[in-house]
Amino acid sequence: MSNAVVNLAQKFSLFDEHWTPKIVAESNGQLVKIAKVKGEFVWHAHANEDELFLVVKGAIDIWLREGGQERCEHLSEGDLFVVPKGVEHRPVAEREAHVVMIEPGSTKHTGETESSATVAIADQQWL
Amino acid sequence: MSNAVVNLAQKFSLFDEHWTPKIVAESNGQLVKIAKVKGEFVWHAHANEDELFLVVKGAIDIWLREGGQERCEHLSEGDLFVVPKGVEHRPVAEREAHVVMIEPGSTKHTGETESSATVAIADQQWL
Repeated sequence: MSNAVVNLAQKFSLFDEHWTPKIVAESNGQLVKIAKVKGEFVWHAHANEDELFLVVKGAIDIWLREGGQERCEHLSEGDLFVVPKGVEHRPVAEREAHVVMIEPGSTKHTGETESSATVAIADQQWL
Repeated sequence: MSNAVVNLAQKFSLFDEHWTPKIVAESNGQLVKIAKVKGEFVWHAHANEDELFLVVKGAIDIWLREGGQERCEHLSEGDLFVVPKGVEHRPVAEREAHVVMIEPGSTKHTGETESSATVAIADQQWL
């Protein structure tokens, strides 16, 4: 349990790498994670967990694949979007963006997709 | 389940009243609520639920009472804080501030404290 005030901008200043979520808070068994993102992430889904995205700097596209159809949601600064459990998705950022994600502690960031981008849950870092 | 992009600033533009959380998204059984706050709220606690606060405009003080001691956490724009379950707290805002709260759907905003500020869960409004 984090019980300190977390300043998001200060936390984002502590790292530079992309697509490596860092944990900054926990609430009701869900983790608040922050990530810098740039480029294309892998398609993946989380079978049992919704995943909340909030863009705090820049913009991202979240591609979604449902019923054989692909669509894209564009999120700018101050936009929030929930990817429902089970829905395949792929975040893409043309330029670097800063994103807050909220999801259960059990959620792997690449879902069931193992890729070179996968960080094991045990290796996810508190900032 | 909300499955649309939510722009926080646009949602905040839809109402003026203080201390009346509006629901803007749901994720893993937790509700994302937004509220404009100004002045002093009532002391209250949520026995079983942590409550996450994120200040997106302005600043608030969260007074906390633990073990007979009171302390105050100051949250400015971009600050996030989790009030742990069971901890009495009282948000105060000298000037109007805009706050995002994330908590389970069962959380009453005044906890077990009934006051004139209490909005029944059934009356909490989706925006």
